[in-house]
Amino acid sequence: MKVINSISEMRALAESARKTGRRIGLIPTMGFLHEGHLSLMRKARKECDAVVVSVFVNPAQFAPNEDFQRYPRDVEGDRKKCDSAGVEVLFMPSAADMYPKDAGVFVTVDGVSDILEGAVRPGHFRGVATVVAKLLNIVKPHAAFFGQKDFQQCVVIKRMVKGLNMDVDIIVFPTIREQDGLAMSSRNGYLNVDERRAAGSLYSALTAGEALLKSGERDPVKLKDAMRAALVKEKGMMIDYIEIADPQSLAPLVKVEARAVMLMAVRLGRTRLIDNILIQ
Amino acid sequence: MKVINSISEMRALAESARKTGRRIGLIPTMGFLHEGHLSLMRKARKECDAVVVSVFVNPAQFAPNEDFQRYPRDVEGDRKKCDSAGVEVLFMPSAADMYPKDAGVFVTVDGVSDILEGAVRPGHFRGVATVVAKLLNIVKPHAAFFGQKDFQQCVVIKRMVKGLNMDVDIIVFPTIREQDGLAMSSRNGYLNVDERRAAGSLYSALTAGEALLKSGERDPVKLKDAMRAALVKEKGMMIDYIEIADPQSLAPLVKVEARAVMLMAVRLGRTRLIDNILIQ
Repeated sequence: MKVINSISEMRALAESARKTGRRIGLIPTMGFLHEGHLSLMRKARKECDAVVVSVFVNPAQFAPNEDFQRYPRDVEGDRKKCDSAGVEVLFMPSAADMYPKDAGVFVTVDGVSDILEGAVRPGHFRGVATVVAKLLNIVKPHAAFFGQKDFQQCVVIKRMVKGLNMDVDIIVFPTIREQDGLAMSSRNGYLNVDERRAAGSLYSALTAGEALLKSGERDPVKLKDAMRAALVKEKGMMIDYIEIADPQSLAPLVKVEARAVMLMAVRLGRTRLIDNILIQ
Repeated sequence: MKVINSISEMRALAESARKTGRRIGLIPTMGFLHEGHLSLMRKARKECDAVVVSVFVNPAQFAPNEDFQRYPRDVEGDRKKCDSAGVEVLFMPSAADMYPKDAGVFVTVDGVSDILEGAVRPGHFRGVATVVAKLLNIVKPHAAFFGQKDFQQCVVIKRMVKGLNMDVDIIVFPTIREQDGLAMSSRNGYLNVDERRAAGSLYSALTAGEALLKSGERDPVKLKDAMRAALVKEKGMMIDYIEIADPQSLAPLVKVEARAVMLMAVRLGRTRLIDNILIQ
């Protein structure tokens, strides 16, 4: 496995892979890799000839009050995991190279960026869209792989790709979960024992909502009440939102008819967790 | 010459040209082609294997009060000119295809988009950056060619390309002028006889400023006064701005030391004209 830090070296390697007709798959990550990322790597290896994993903790998607500084990092662990997973290139650019002074260039995706996560984290999706655009332009993949856990991020990126006519397939892969249903996340390590126990109830709450829906309940207010009731109320738990929305537009549904996504964001102490479940 | 309206057809053709190692040059235009565009085509033919000219009057870069509706169009004339100039593909997408309903995706370039032209035309450079990003993603050129007449546009696009790590050379070619110095522009056709005569003085004013600078005058206030005085004051002429700025940042200079760009925007009746001169 090749470890590349230089943007121009990454670009040259991608260009030569493309010229020889190899299909490139990119998995953009912020590192501290877990089983969710590894499942994306396996998926990418099946569908592509060359798998590139980028590890870049993107300052542009953190607000000043957020956890950019303490976001977990494990360069050596990430390297080993990528190597074992058959990744061809681990791309780890520096923040100074990715955001030269006074760059000031951003991609904005209106309509889906300022609701849900965007309402709680202003500027977050502008940062996400911008860094993903940059990575897509550097690595030039045929396909890019994202986890469904960050559902709204996937919606934003799909819209960006369509809106800017970028030539790449966006592939969203199901969330990988712990035994108790907690969605794998690099932030789970922040949780203390009590918080960790309560965290498992996010998924129970989502599946409770799904079960109620499948039993015939169509009223989102009642469905959301049931989900709220199913959360284990650890002290210090704060619900940022529980929502049932259209999976394309993320507009809240007034009656749940066909496809829907149930989304949830909860704070446990200093840790913020998100999860979702797609109803087909 | 191939005329292509479909985005997917253009994309497929560009991809196959790239695979065979041919160098693609793109000249993005709003049509109503003149000698300025033709000089870009000749330049592109020298430097590239396949020249693509796009003709698209981009609604996103016009403010509601501007001349989008009356902007001159001549599809048949443009086709003939491109054909004679040895263009391989004339790409003419529809507005409905370029901006599907609720797209809402934009590229913004901070710092250089809200001054000079951007101050007079809010949202203009967001529209320019967005459409150029889209065209670059569709046509995938190795090089894109722009006229220096739209100096600030060139600065915005170069910043966008750098900021989003787009893999394309931006080539800026000198302004082509009429006999009296008036910069070629599709909007010159709006001018009546009196306005047309006065319009020639934009370039005289710029060259007067340049001559004074070269004679040793370093004070931008005095240089701008001299330029203002050299304008032929046709009735109804309004000066939007006369500025002397750093060519990279477009920041106004307080003392003109080395490289500088002199920029000017003037309204003659309902017509807005811009011009500039680069001091090396």
